[in-house]
Amino acid sequence: MLGGTNLPRVRDYNQGVVLEAIRVGDGASRVEIAEKTGLTAQTVSNIVRRLLDQALVVEAGSDPSGRKPRVKLRINPQAGYAIGALIDRDETSLVLMALDGTIVTRTRSAVDQSLGAQGVITQLANQVEWLVNESDIPRTKILGMGIGCPGAMDHERGIVYEPLNLFGWNWREVRLKEELVERTGFPVIVDNDATAAAIGERWVGGAQGVPNFAFVFMGMGVGAGLYIENQIYRGDTTNAGELGHITLNMDGPLCFCGNRGCVEVYCAPESMVKEARNRLQAGAESSLKHSYGNNADIEVDIEMLSKAALACDPLALEVVTGSARMLAAGITSLVSLLDLRLVVLGGKRLHRLGSIYQSEVQRALDARLITRNIRQVRVELSQAGEDAGAVGAAAMVLHEIYSPRLSELNLV
Amino acid sequence: MLGGTNLPRVRDYNQGVVLEAIRVGDGASRVEIAEKTGLTAQTVSNIVRRLLDQALVVEAGSDPSGRKPRVKLRINPQAGYAIGALIDRDETSLVLMALDGTIVTRTRSAVDQSLGAQGVITQLANQVEWLVNESDIPRTKILGMGIGCPGAMDHERGIVYEPLNLFGWNWREVRLKEELVERTGFPVIVDNDATAAAIGERWVGGAQGVPNFAFVFMGMGVGAGLYIENQIYRGDTTNAGELGHITLNMDGPLCFCGNRGCVEVYCAPESMVKEARNRLQAGAESSLKHSYGNNADIEVDIEMLSKAALACDPLALEVVTGSARMLAAGITSLVSLLDLRLVVLGGKRLHRLGSIYQSEVQRALDARLITRNIRQVRVELSQAGEDAGAVGAAAMVLHEIYSPRLSELNLV
Repeated sequence: MLGGTNLPRVRDYNQGVVLEAIRVGDGASRVEIAEKTGLTAQTVSNIVRRLLDQALVVEAGSDPSGRKPRVKLRINPQAGYAIGALIDRDETSLVLMALDGTIVTRTRSAVDQSLGAQGVITQLANQVEWLVNESDIPRTKILGMGIGCPGAMDHERGIVYEPLNLFGWNWREVRLKEELVERTGFPVIVDNDATAAAIGERWVGGAQGVPNFAFVFMGMGVGAGLYIENQIYRGDTTNAGELGHITLNMDGPLCFCGNRGCVEVYCAPESMVKEARNRLQAGAESSLKHSYGNNADIEVDIEMLSKAALACDPLALEVVTGSARMLAAGITSLVSLLDLRLVVLGGKRLHRLGSIYQSEVQRALDARLITRNIRQVRVELSQAGEDAGAVGAAAMVLHEIYSPRLSELNLV
Repeated sequence: MLGGTNLPRVRDYNQGVVLEAIRVGDGASRVEIAEKTGLTAQTVSNIVRRLLDQALVVEAGSDPSGRKPRVKLRINPQAGYAIGALIDRDETSLVLMALDGTIVTRTRSAVDQSLGAQGVITQLANQVEWLVNESDIPRTKILGMGIGCPGAMDHERGIVYEPLNLFGWNWREVRLKEELVERTGFPVIVDNDATAAAIGERWVGGAQGVPNFAFVFMGMGVGAGLYIENQIYRGDTTNAGELGHITLNMDGPLCFCGNRGCVEVYCAPESMVKEARNRLQAGAESSLKHSYGNNADIEVDIEMLSKAALACDPLALEVVTGSARMLAAGITSLVSLLDLRLVVLGGKRLHRLGSIYQSEVQRALDARLITRNIRQVRVELSQAGEDAGAVGAAAMVLHEIYSPRLSELNLV
């Protein structure tokens, strides 16, 4: 049930609304913000004064085009910073990001799976130290650390259960938040990688003003981060968006999750590699074979496969397109259920093959949606590029502090 | 982007919150309402006075159990009424419902498909007249008419596009809202049948206090109405919840929507009837055969099939269980994507076979969800029974006027 609301909450919420309007409408004036937000000129003026006092916002010249020159407002990028980390099976990648989305420093390290959860936690803590030292930004200016990670998890408590995509790591109820607060001294937010990416997309420029969209994130697995009615949606146990484990084929191949024919079985990088190896072993022609030998134990990895596909190697292209088609079918189901306006595709590996995925997903939505005759759904590649996961993780920290959230109005 | 909010909106919203608290906590006192909603005693007291003045709420004795007797508050059922209509391929069913969810009168009529959209509109208008006359409730007390209908549609404008489930009716951009406002004189709200059912479930008693749930509605087709964060979710073009057309099998049988292996192909009543006929024609043993002859042109309909399944006829039971299993797979995908706490099953035909569907869906969610080790999802049958669609349609009118909606706080 919904609770009531009161004036202090309304004040905080309206401040978030104005701050978002300034962030999105870079260089907007007070008058423009009032128009955009529906707030009175007086309310906007009061809030902007507060934001200027807090140095969250700066006045940046004036726009002389109107009858009366209007002072332009901008986010002060130096007002605050956040660290973002993405945990994937093969590497951890981190960024230190300014309030306006600018990346100050970044780092990536391979993961040694044999060290287990504690090894990854130590690695992350070391990377954070490195980022902070490298950047020369005072620790007091860093508002916190966000971590994007495969699920299932408890976002509130920052506990990661057995992430099936980290299989072999022997993770079990890892208290990621608690451990990293202790090691780094920063406030920590843990969430699903795809959810982080969705928040990041909105923060750095894509999907702005789109009330309902999904960020389809491909790491080692596949997931979706969901914006619903302008709010990030986490679901009842903070595990929404499990696109990788919806069923595409009841009688399909067995998935590690215990079911058959899940999206991930067909789409994940590992599945593509397996498919390519099988085809090569069965004697298919490919540039991969010429470069990497003809023996039965063919060493193809996702990097090679991606390069070959982009170079139009027929086998590689077929395998990637096959993955893209199946992902597109899963996304069609997602859009049929949620009636979204936009699908953003991202994550390091998907990003490199972006054009292939984008065209397959667009084609499927245009052909298969039940509402295809009355609307078109946009498909875009993430504006955050290969760093979408880490950028999203950093954006979670800023989002938590600065974004307007209707749910914050709700007293109970 | 979100807009700001202001005091008049907050006042309206808080009134909705208090009214909902009274509706749900039938007989609650002012003190209990303040606890539940987080509002101050003073705010609750002011709002309750307004609600008493408007006769929306009545004082109904006092609870002497506390130190100080507390006056119990109840919704005044006579404060307002709504008409609800469900359009399905074979019949239109209507109810006249009081503010507290009590059904005053109901009616059902078969649909003559050959009369097309105009025939159905005339039939609905006549049924409305009959309901109003039969009930003896003054027209001024009737707040409006809600209509639940298969999609695709434009909920805002009340236009129904070609509903594929009404195939053969030759519907094309039918201005249902406009036409029925004209014929009945009541304000009209048109929405998807499943969305209406979800609103109804919350209004009449099921799913109360559950922030995230789906109402899976089976008419001639299958759809889902979605509550997300305590708000009905309609999607970008008001066509969310198309559960019937997500893919269960990429290479499955052709669906009328143009794709293969959709949920509806396997689950819809028509599919079950077809499957039963095929099996009978292939010589399967069944009580259906004994009752209805052994000829090739076997006249089985969904009523017979349902009765036979409930009487444990093996063929009928297998067919219905098969439908339930496939629906369960679709629902599992829905819950994986939205991380819901509750799935409510309903609609006339599903309701009659409720126990079979309920157990198959529960089994699938327990076995297949990726979060199955950390949570259980509840599966319930609709408390609105066979009238879930029409009750939901009526509830839409009351919901529109009286429910608290966070989105109403949003200025732009």
